[in-house]
Amino acid sequence: MQISARNGLKGTVKKVEIGSVNTEVTIEIANGVEVTAIITKSSADNLKLSEGKEVYAIIKATDVMIAID
Amino acid sequence: MQISARNGLKGTVKKVEIGSVNTEVTIEIANGVEVTAIITKSSADNLKLSEGKEVYAIIKATDVMIAID
Amino acid sequence: MQISARNGLKGTVKKVEIGSVNTEVTIEIANGVEVTAIITKSSADNLKLSEGKEVYAIIKATDVMIAID
Amino acid sequence: MQISARNGLKGTVKKVEIGSVNTEVTIEIANGVEVTAIITKSSADNLKLSEGKEVYAIIKATDVMIAID
Amino acid sequence: MQISARNGLKGTVKKVEIGSVNTEVTIEIANGVEVTAIITKSSADNLKLSEGKEVYAIIKATDVMIAID
Amino acid sequence: MQISARNGLKGTVKKVEIGSVNTEVTIEIANGVEVTAIITKSSADNLKLSEGKEVYAIIKATDVMIAID
Repeated sequence: MQISARNGLKGTVKKVEIGSVNTEVTIEIANGVEVTAIITKSSADNLKLSEGKEVYAIIKATDVMIAID
Repeated sequence: MQISARNGLKGTVKKVEIGSVNTEVTIEIANGVEVTAIITKSSADNLKLSEGKEVYAIIKATDVMIAID
Repeated sequence: MQISARNGLKGTVKKVEIGSVNTEVTIEIANGVEVTAIITKSSADNLKLSEGKEVYAIIKATDVMIAID
Repeated sequence: MQISARNGLKGTVKKVEIGSVNTEVTIEIANGVEVTAIITKSSADNLKLSEGKEVYAIIKATDVMIAID
Repeated sequence: MQISARNGLKGTVKKVEIGSVNTEVTIEIANGVEVTAIITKSSADNLKLSEGKEVYAIIKATDVMIAID
Repeated sequence: MQISARNGLKGTVKKVEIGSVNTEVTIEIANGVEVTAIITKSSADNLKLSEGKEVYAIIKATDVMIAID
């Protein structure tokens, strides 16, 4: 499958915190660089996410803002 | 300033492509790992973005999807 | 590939309107039911979208609002 | 009321799952085609959503991604 | 029509800037307080937006971030 | 810090409702005009949000829809 979202960052699941509805997933995309995703619990179950699993963080380019100091 | 968005990835601007309304900005957030952002031209102007500038890619955790192979 | 977004509506591309930066794609997901997507021109190119192609409209559940009359 | 979001899919509520903060609503928009929405519990209450109710799934065109096999 | 989005800010259109695909609309929601919206040109046409028109700025609560100095 | 999001509405926190995962924050941005934000509990904690605090409601222009009666 190929998707129109511009960013597909390959990484490894570092932490999975399961809530009642949502699950928070921390993905290491480079040494010391982490991305946090919040997805529904049922999606996390379907994807069988667990620590160490290889995943992609998919992000639309229009959902990335830019900040400067 | 501090913001509620969970992801603030520090990086360096690699490329700025200016369109008529939007500007596409490529940010290197780790060696060989890039994030593409599409922001309005006027925002890009306000931030004075140019190659080599240090920026943060700001992404809400709920805007990060997860995919597996 | 499998993705955490909850909605994956199978359909057929009915129309592709190419702009300078964005491309508007109309997808028929059922008889007489259409979904319009706006994606970047470069994504549309990568996916080689054209009339009649089978695609999926991917939509996060939190991006669906509900209205009543 | 008329809204700028491009997609307004008419459908019927099939299921309402009430969480502590969010409510998950399944809408049938065509025979066998369903869309899942996650809205806040208070919005679901205001709209008095229940099985069988006629609703519209409102989705911005920029929130629709496209995937191919 | 009633919608699940939590924020519906009543205001007056102050400026409409028409692009090739998108239109930028500035809405005054209180004395000296303005909100900028970017919608597609075709949506702006459908809504017949022009200076002085009374409109609502509709924003999902999950699309509002909070920042502090 | 300066961010690419076009809307930064200055306001005062009126109410903070803490859920298990998310926190709902009501911000008064003008006399009688309120904006509701839903952010993660951990973000609300980091920002030390409480009634009376001065904050900014940050909203991307593409996340603002327009409705008319």
